[in-house]
Amino acid sequence: MRLLLLNPNTTEALTQRLALSAATVLPADVELLPLTALQGFPYISSRAEAQIAGAAVLDLLAQHEGRFDAAVIAAFGDPGLSAARELFDLPVTGLSEAAMLSALALGERFAFVTFSPRLTPWYEEQVTRAGLGMRFAGTFTPDATLGSIAAVAEEMRAPLVETCRRAAAHADILILGGAPIAGLAGDIADEVPAVLLDPVKAAVLQAVSLHRLRPSGADKGSYARPPAKDSTGLSPALAHRIAGKDAPDAP
Amino acid sequence: MRLLLLNPNTTEALTQRLALSAATVLPADVELLPLTALQGFPYISSRAEAQIAGAAVLDLLAQHEGRFDAAVIAAFGDPGLSAARELFDLPVTGLSEAAMLSALALGERFAFVTFSPRLTPWYEEQVTRAGLGMRFAGTFTPDATLGSIAAVAEEMRAPLVETCRRAAAHADILILGGAPIAGLAGDIADEVPAVLLDPVKAAVLQAVSLHRLRPSGADKGSYARPPAKDSTGLSPALAHRIAGKDAPDAP
Amino acid sequence: MRLLLLNPNTTEALTQRLALSAATVLPADVELLPLTALQGFPYISSRAEAQIAGAAVLDLLAQHEGRFDAAVIAAFGDPGLSAARELFDLPVTGLSEAAMLSALALGERFAFVTFSPRLTPWYEEQVTRAGLGMRFAGTFTPDATLGSIAAVAEEMRAPLVETCRRAAAHADILILGGAPIAGLAGDIADEVPAVLLDPVKAAVLQAVSLHRLRPSGADKGSYARPPAKDSTGLSPALAHRIAGKDAPDAP
Amino acid sequence: MRLLLLNPNTTEALTQRLALSAATVLPADVELLPLTALQGFPYISSRAEAQIAGAAVLDLLAQHEGRFDAAVIAAFGDPGLSAARELFDLPVTGLSEAAMLSALALGERFAFVTFSPRLTPWYEEQVTRAGLGMRFAGTFTPDATLGSIAAVAEEMRAPLVETCRRAAAHADILILGGAPIAGLAGDIADEVPAVLLDPVKAAVLQAVSLHRLRPSGADKGSYARPPAKDSTGLSPALAHRIAGKDAPDAP
Amino acid sequence: MRLLLLNPNTTEALTQRLALSAATVLPADVELLPLTALQGFPYISSRAEAQIAGAAVLDLLAQHEGRFDAAVIAAFGDPGLSAARELFDLPVTGLSEAAMLSALALGERFAFVTFSPRLTPWYEEQVTRAGLGMRFAGTFTPDATLGSIAAVAEEMRAPLVETCRRAAAHADILILGGAPIAGLAGDIADEVPAVLLDPVKAAVLQAVSLHRLRPSGADKGSYARPPAKDSTGLSPALAHRIAGKDAPDAP
Amino acid sequence: MRLLLLNPNTTEALTQRLALSAATVLPADVELLPLTALQGFPYISSRAEAQIAGAAVLDLLAQHEGRFDAAVIAAFGDPGLSAARELFDLPVTGLSEAAMLSALALGERFAFVTFSPRLTPWYEEQVTRAGLGMRFAGTFTPDATLGSIAAVAEEMRAPLVETCRRAAAHADILILGGAPIAGLAGDIADEVPAVLLDPVKAAVLQAVSLHRLRPSGADKGSYARPPAKDSTGLSPALAHRIAGKDAPDAP
Repeated sequence: MRLLLLNPNTTEALTQRLALSAATVLPADVELLPLTALQGFPYISSRAEAQIAGAAVLDLLAQHEGRFDAAVIAAFGDPGLSAARELFDLPVTGLSEAAMLSALALGERFAFVTFSPRLTPWYEEQVTRAGLGMRFAGTFTPDATLGSIAAVAEEMRAPLVETCRRAAAHADILILGGAPIAGLAGDIADEVPAVLLDPVKAAVLQAVSLHRLRPSGADKGSYARPPAKDSTGLSPALAHRIAGKDAPDAP
Repeated sequence: MRLLLLNPNTTEALTQRLALSAATVLPADVELLPLTALQGFPYISSRAEAQIAGAAVLDLLAQHEGRFDAAVIAAFGDPGLSAARELFDLPVTGLSEAAMLSALALGERFAFVTFSPRLTPWYEEQVTRAGLGMRFAGTFTPDATLGSIAAVAEEMRAPLVETCRRAAAHADILILGGAPIAGLAGDIADEVPAVLLDPVKAAVLQAVSLHRLRPSGADKGSYARPPAKDSTGLSPALAHRIAGKDAPDAP
Repeated sequence: MRLLLLNPNTTEALTQRLALSAATVLPADVELLPLTALQGFPYISSRAEAQIAGAAVLDLLAQHEGRFDAAVIAAFGDPGLSAARELFDLPVTGLSEAAMLSALALGERFAFVTFSPRLTPWYEEQVTRAGLGMRFAGTFTPDATLGSIAAVAEEMRAPLVETCRRAAAHADILILGGAPIAGLAGDIADEVPAVLLDPVKAAVLQAVSLHRLRPSGADKGSYARPPAKDSTGLSPALAHRIAGKDAPDAP
Repeated sequence: MRLLLLNPNTTEALTQRLALSAATVLPADVELLPLTALQGFPYISSRAEAQIAGAAVLDLLAQHEGRFDAAVIAAFGDPGLSAARELFDLPVTGLSEAAMLSALALGERFAFVTFSPRLTPWYEEQVTRAGLGMRFAGTFTPDATLGSIAAVAEEMRAPLVETCRRAAAHADILILGGAPIAGLAGDIADEVPAVLLDPVKAAVLQAVSLHRLRPSGADKGSYARPPAKDSTGLSPALAHRIAGKDAPDAP
Repeated sequence: MRLLLLNPNTTEALTQRLALSAATVLPADVELLPLTALQGFPYISSRAEAQIAGAAVLDLLAQHEGRFDAAVIAAFGDPGLSAARELFDLPVTGLSEAAMLSALALGERFAFVTFSPRLTPWYEEQVTRAGLGMRFAGTFTPDATLGSIAAVAEEMRAPLVETCRRAAAHADILILGGAPIAGLAGDIADEVPAVLLDPVKAAVLQAVSLHRLRPSGADKGSYARPPAKDSTGLSPALAHRIAGKDAPDAP
Repeated sequence: MRLLLLNPNTTEALTQRLALSAATVLPADVELLPLTALQGFPYISSRAEAQIAGAAVLDLLAQHEGRFDAAVIAAFGDPGLSAARELFDLPVTGLSEAAMLSALALGERFAFVTFSPRLTPWYEEQVTRAGLGMRFAGTFTPDATLGSIAAVAEEMRAPLVETCRRAAAHADILILGGAPIAGLAGDIADEVPAVLLDPVKAAVLQAVSLHRLRPSGADKGSYARPPAKDSTGLSPALAHRIAGKDAPDAP
């Protein structure tokens, strides 16, 4: 199968980091197709930015439709996830939802650990949306100030370890959220008394499983394709998809 | 005060209907500024469409910034509501949130009544997002098939009354959701054994109250303005706003 | 419209303080009618006292019926709120419910801040009653000992600011509960990294909005007027009202 | 031990019915002291009436303090329960809370069955107050019209059996709420495929158990006695109690 | 009545401790029959051990069926409770469920206090199973290391008092869980600003009450006896019971 | 990898049916090892039976330890799941948990459909245990009487389709629970307006994913291995495992 790893941020270095982490769990028969957004923000960190990026995710999926069998929206707040599931005949997964579902099978209570308190409201909306509040222990962030997005995992390693230890008093599963710290979970596992989860790994594995379980995604219920509809001002590919037509260049 | 009534659908007739309903509760010192989206969909009815429309709402607000003191996003699923609250220094309300908050003061359990089952998943996400599930009794829709969006309130009057009666066995407050049936609540109140709520009235009154309570909106916490940020590919007005600058042409 | 501001405590100075705070948000066309309870307690601070005061609230409303269009029960635990909504054909609001509903539109998670831990169980019953636990972060009180009720806002200013700062680590909206600290929110807003809410302002604005939305209050469902009933030992005005008769001296 | 069975309704016949049902489960060493309210309503059936009756319950308990070791407030909506627990140094139980707690040990999901839909909002407030919504399946009432309160159990036997059968599709434990149908559970048990609970039996047994477990009631936390307080306009006995003094005539 | 006190641990000293604590609340007409498991673990402290012990509980109950009228499963995590209620025609109670139900009538929010963090996940499953999360404040344990199980209550007295004080900041009712600290609640009550509950007392009293309320246990709904069934490899007594036959040697 | 498919029922034909369904989604590099319980019940259908079977599951896993890399407990109520995760250094999944987690990514609200109402309390305990009640719509069963367990899927096909259609009015994802109807989901998908899920497929795919994500299972937190412990009366293999020793014959 061909798995699209769609980074909705415009920072190519993050895509590389995510792909590297994903590769460590990828089955041999899965081809990973990394893709970086061309429009939007270097790094999405608010609901306003996620609202805009989520719309851009739909556009990118429409433009590349036919070239992949499943897709991962590779930003922790899952911009555009419900919308993408409605529009496309294939499984789509998101980093936060996938990490939460994995957490439920590995422990009792999960927490988010991330590098900036600005991310908290957006990230916690994912817990609410998923109805998983009964097993959520909160979001934990370091006091330290963020340097550059590209080097967060290295520069903030020590404060993040200390934040994980603090979070471990409240949760037994810690989800390290945010693309810039993809892969960090593996590096610091020995220093934290809790199970650490790397969301991109969870999301890639979930996409592979859903592809085996239902290659077409949900075709009824909440995520059924909506009726064809006219639109104004959208890109041709997205307008085409919303008008209910198959991708023009699907193989 | 100047109150923007932003219809994120592209159908001008819906804007008229919403403005008419809003006018019946508007205090004398409030000037209503109706605005219809130029891009998007005649009538938003899925989460995919709401994802795209929510981004367009931000764009419209940015373009008109400085001309209004508070804004109502006049579609029942509140596309872009959290995002708009983050970005703009003034109160923004949405039809579904405002209707739910009014319902909590008028009865014990509320239900949504709308004209098409396609709207259910999107509408119910608003209940989940708001954490109000304990007082929600479900969404009720007629079996009848929808004719034209512009004439729903008239063509489907009888099946909607019958749906309201059915819903009244489960809830004491019925929220008639969907711009095409704005105003219907008043017309059929005598035929239904429950309190009927018209969302646009609730949203307009909430915006007026918030303007008196906090003219600048929330300036701390979840809806505080995010740090200024660069972007690629956005309209100049929206890019300007996200870059943390005041509207260039604010009076 | 004529808005009754009913202070169920017997301390006249609290009524003045509440009226002063209310006045800052009152629309020009609203006449505020402050009223202080003649029987009961100088300051209600337990569920036992609220049980008794709630009955007295109904009596006062019955005695003054016809002289006002909407009423605010101006004690934070909303004594008699559900009961009053059942009995009277007009909107009634309460300080805690109104503050919570405003909080839902201004942030994600709200907390109560008040001056005495004795108030906590009574206040938190309001969160439970309203079904809003998913968005509640707890009640925070200073360690300092309370001096006189009349001068709480001044004498405990510093410990309350420090309590607010502590609460701000758990919630983004802080509701300053308790009539003796009405108005304090505005004074200390700059010293606390959270949005501060003054309940009496919220309750007054909610009453004004409900009066525009439904001047008769809910006439069906949970808050519909109960059937007329005989009673023994009640004041004539309240017995009259419960017997389903209009106020004898309504204008 | 001496157990006060306080009927907050003014109908003596209901007290007899409740005492009769209680007697079937009473241990030999418990003396039951039935007491009927002299003021209030023949039969409480709304939150307004419960607000008033709850205050009267406190008064009655204060007047009889010293003559009993524990008390049952014998109306299904538990008027004045929290307040009474705060004020008196002994266990107090209520019909709905006791029935719900018994239900939790006898099945998975409980429902209320009662004879009039008017009672529903008041009764369901008890589920919310207790935080037991996850195990509650709703309130079920017959369509039949109520005749006289004194003869409900006999006149409405058939519709109540049919209502119980309907409720049994949603719950495995049915609580027959309302003093007028005390004892009915035993009569119709064979006709309903669910466990039927008689609240007054549950409340009497809970009071006996609490008296063995903690004869003084809770003396710390939520139900600790509030600080002594002055009051205006209360009966001497109640004012005395609230002023923190022991009953003048306690043995 | 004859009340079986079944200790599923193999440590006889714990049975003595539990019986001693139970005796302080036992009505005069109840004969307590203590029974210690012969197979299993000296002290159950994980879900794996509880899974095995719960099956052994069923076996012991089957072997002694006919010699008792009600049973208490005397380990805090209630191993085999639901299963025992299904299989036997009499009331069965468990330490954690009974303590939680008592707590609901004595305060607002309860916490568990126990001597080892290893017990937390197993104990908290009981809160979840009972649907009581809205009133639960967490599990609190000392940092101190556990010495011998038999002497926990004495050796860890000081750290447990200090843990209770810490827990009292979050809950007003503290349940001291774990058979090895049965009876401790009474000893340290004066040193902790919260109501302390001893689970074995609560469980014994609940069993006595249920025996008066429904001597046969629930015979319909969730805990109705399952249809008779063949089995392989079970003890004769348990196979007999599951085959739907009465105890061969019932009196 | 080697994946143990452990059927805790003693009916070999069910194991075949489960293996057949699992095979349709199994990656090429996974070897499936079906195993049927030798002791217990032909078909587990109550919590009493699950309590016993769950203990037997631990025994079987201990006896075969070293021969597999991950295990599926192939009964819908997941007997012994938490316990097995604690004891063994590898991923263990269960049919109901895995199906629920898959459902969360394919729709909004899931329901269980099964062939006998006797299974309902046991199955619904899994929803409660997992904290997923906010997305659960109930259990639906046919009125038809069950014939033989081995032929349920064929004999009850029509009533199960009709039950699914009824359930589809309440949920968009239907989980067909119970080993005897493994595989049915695929057969009847076209006849039901909802997404149908086959739990054994979900559980197998989850085990494969967890094996890639964490081959050793959770080694910290809720599912960390408990300390070594002595025991009495267990099988040598299980006693060995609980004593914290590796399987004697691990390869």
